Amino acid sequence: MNFIVDSGQVATALETLRAKRPRVHCITNAVAQNYTANMLLALGVTPSMTVAPREIPSFVSGADALLVNLGTLDRERLEGIELAIQAAQANAVPWILDPVLVNRSPDRLDLARLLLLRRPRILRVNAEEFAALSGRDEAPGAFAARNLTAVALTGAVDTVSDGIRTVRVSNGHELMTRVTAMGCAATAVAAAFLAVEPAPVRAAACALAAVGVAGELAARTARGPGSFAAGMLDALYSLDRQSLADLGRIEIVPPGVGPAANDTGVTMP
Amino acid sequence: MNFIVDSGQVATALETLRAKRPRVHCITNAVAQNYTANMLLALGVTPSMTVAPREIPSFVSGADALLVNLGTLDRERLEGIELAIQAAQANAVPWILDPVLVNRSPDRLDLARLLLLRRPRILRVNAEEFAALSGRDEAPGAFAARNLTAVALTGAVDTVSDGIRTVRVSNGHELMTRVTAMGCAATAVAAAFLAVEPAPVRAAACALAAVGVAGELAARTARGPGSFAAGMLDALYSLDRQSLADLGRIEIVPPGVGPAANDTGVTMP
Amino acid sequence: MNFIVDSGQVATALETLRAKRPRVHCITNAVAQNYTANMLLALGVTPSMTVAPREIPSFVSGADALLVNLGTLDRERLEGIELAIQAAQANAVPWILDPVLVNRSPDRLDLARLLLLRRPRILRVNAEEFAALSGRDEAPGAFAARNLTAVALTGAVDTVSDGIRTVRVSNGHELMTRVTAMGCAATAVAAAFLAVEPAPVRAAACALAAVGVAGELAARTARGPGSFAAGMLDALYSLDRQSLADLGRIEIVPPGVGPAANDTGVTMP
Repeated sequence: MNFIVDSGQVATALETLRAKRPRVHCITNAVAQNYTANMLLALGVTPSMTVAPREIPSFVSGADALLVNLGTLDRERLEGIELAIQAAQANAVPWILDPVLVNRSPDRLDLARLLLLRRPRILRVNAEEFAALSGRDEAPGAFAARNLTAVALTGAVDTVSDGIRTVRVSNGHELMTRVTAMGCAATAVAAAFLAVEPAPVRAAACALAAVGVAGELAARTARGPGSFAAGMLDALYSLDRQSLADLGRIEIVPPGVGPAANDTGVTMP
Repeated sequence: MNFIVDSGQVATALETLRAKRPRVHCITNAVAQNYTANMLLALGVTPSMTVAPREIPSFVSGADALLVNLGTLDRERLEGIELAIQAAQANAVPWILDPVLVNRSPDRLDLARLLLLRRPRILRVNAEEFAALSGRDEAPGAFAARNLTAVALTGAVDTVSDGIRTVRVSNGHELMTRVTAMGCAATAVAAAFLAVEPAPVRAAACALAAVGVAGELAARTARGPGSFAAGMLDALYSLDRQSLADLGRIEIVPPGVGPAANDTGVTMP
Repeated sequence: MNFIVDSGQVATALETLRAKRPRVHCITNAVAQNYTANMLLALGVTPSMTVAPREIPSFVSGADALLVNLGTLDRERLEGIELAIQAAQANAVPWILDPVLVNRSPDRLDLARLLLLRRPRILRVNAEEFAALSGRDEAPGAFAARNLTAVALTGAVDTVSDGIRTVRVSNGHELMTRVTAMGCAATAVAAAFLAVEPAPVRAAACALAAVGVAGELAARTARGPGSFAAGMLDALYSLDRQSLADLGRIEIVPPGVGPAANDTGVTMP
């Protein structure tokens, strides 16, 4: 199988994104809404963010991808999520699930497990969230195969797998952990790439590489997390093929190898 | 009729705004709340933003202007909007309507039409929203006259008309389309100008010129949309008479001429 | 009684905060959520922000401190506040009350008075809010003693008192009044200090000095409120013992002296 993801493909997908300007509907938490919209706009994507149940069907059915983020689960978002997934499935709109902090709330964990049964194209999680969802020591690929979803497990090194193909992305910067909504916005970017790149593993890897490289570029001139957050948007806006080629660190993991436990923070037996 | 709007009047209105520090209550969408409050504060205006129905009457009755933005229509905002308009009308508080993305949701369109019957002083729309609301090829001035509201139709060139006086403002920068809530915040600035300038056409033109000139100033040093968003607030904070005179592009459209179709994005027969 | 708060103690508390990385759960208004989370992250604190009633008990019981901010009182936040205080009291989690704009809404004032009976460790108010809550001309120390809570009365000069010890902090910058959520975020920082410093007066004074000094540092390079807001986060991220020693202006008020009326904006007989 000639499955390849490299910096050149990220650059090409990014150019397609900027040319097609897809619409991404985001049901995301109140803390992340503004930064998420700004990250999408910096990339040329058109965000819509309403969480009102009566409005969601028309917005989602006209969108090119859907983000479902569980960061703040008020009642309207709960209703809205269900309607959004129905509209996405009825209109073949690809969707992605970000079960933020699912490890901190039993209710949210229950909901995330139910939503996984609805088959998001991609599940984006960190190590703690993955451990809570998986409920056992499991490689991302095994979890992906079992749940028929691609897993994007992010950390110092990101692992993306659909159970058959596994890709590792080693971009990013420590300051990304000091800005709220950075992970949530990165998931929205993955949703945007899904709109132009049908293979979920490649879409997720493109998003994580683009955001990670932009983070490294922004860190060069940042004086702290405030200037870094603005610099990320600037860097995404002008991200180009050369920067991706110079800084992108994407590698295909040969089948059977699997991600090393210390790369992902997931303890494996 | 000696109706004039020029850069000098914008500067004077801005000075009055900074001296009087009016209170503007904003019922606006969750994505826009923070940036809107920051844009008002940069101008010396005091924003209040609660959407809770039980609190809205006391906030609106003590305010100098009211913004009603339909960007995220959850149930509390729906209830809140009705109570806010009642309080505004009972206390002679001028209000302005921003029917964001009314072209994307039939429910929102119905609501916007009902709210238009309540006679906002100004309706702020882009070309797609105006086309959806108007429902036919119509000049902004004709729509304004028919609905007894001033229309501020924004785009690369903004047209403001109450059906009798029409003004064109040609300020702004492309980066303004890459920052979320920029249009929503500009409408809040128009509400603030309504508090010190009773003529709706002049208030809207002042706001669009001030925000547009600030955008041009901010673009000079911006490295992308992140630094631009911060730079806009800096530019509004120190915007002065000289910059407005140098950069302001405001023209009165002679009666009977009307805005050219290619300026507004509205196709006219 | 050898009660001391000085710049060295602020620096030590800040180091403890960065080492322990406490969790602070914030029920705060929609306008302030993003900036509050970013201020906490800049300091190395882990914020959680959900306002959904069903999720609050598990988040609060695992937190090291709780912020209750009354800035936007929708129904879910109203329910959530009650559940959060119950969970805080059941788990000995210290909490702090910020009754934003309580002077503008009778309903909010009623609620704030009821919440004061639940004995927050710290009440953070400005002069107008304090006057509304106190209902009479009263010194912060007298109010604190009567309500068994420390009062942090902020303004050009901040006064912190528990009725026995009173401290004055004279740091900060005028641009802090031109950025929304600055006061709300400072209260969240006080909650974070409560997690590492059990004496409420010292925790509040540490927070106000740290935020105020960061504001003075940020103002040195700011071109207006936009660059200032980002610069605040940068300054908090790298705030060190030397800057606190050079710029910190903290003084213990001798018993019986009380804050001068013109320092606090509160008129006393």
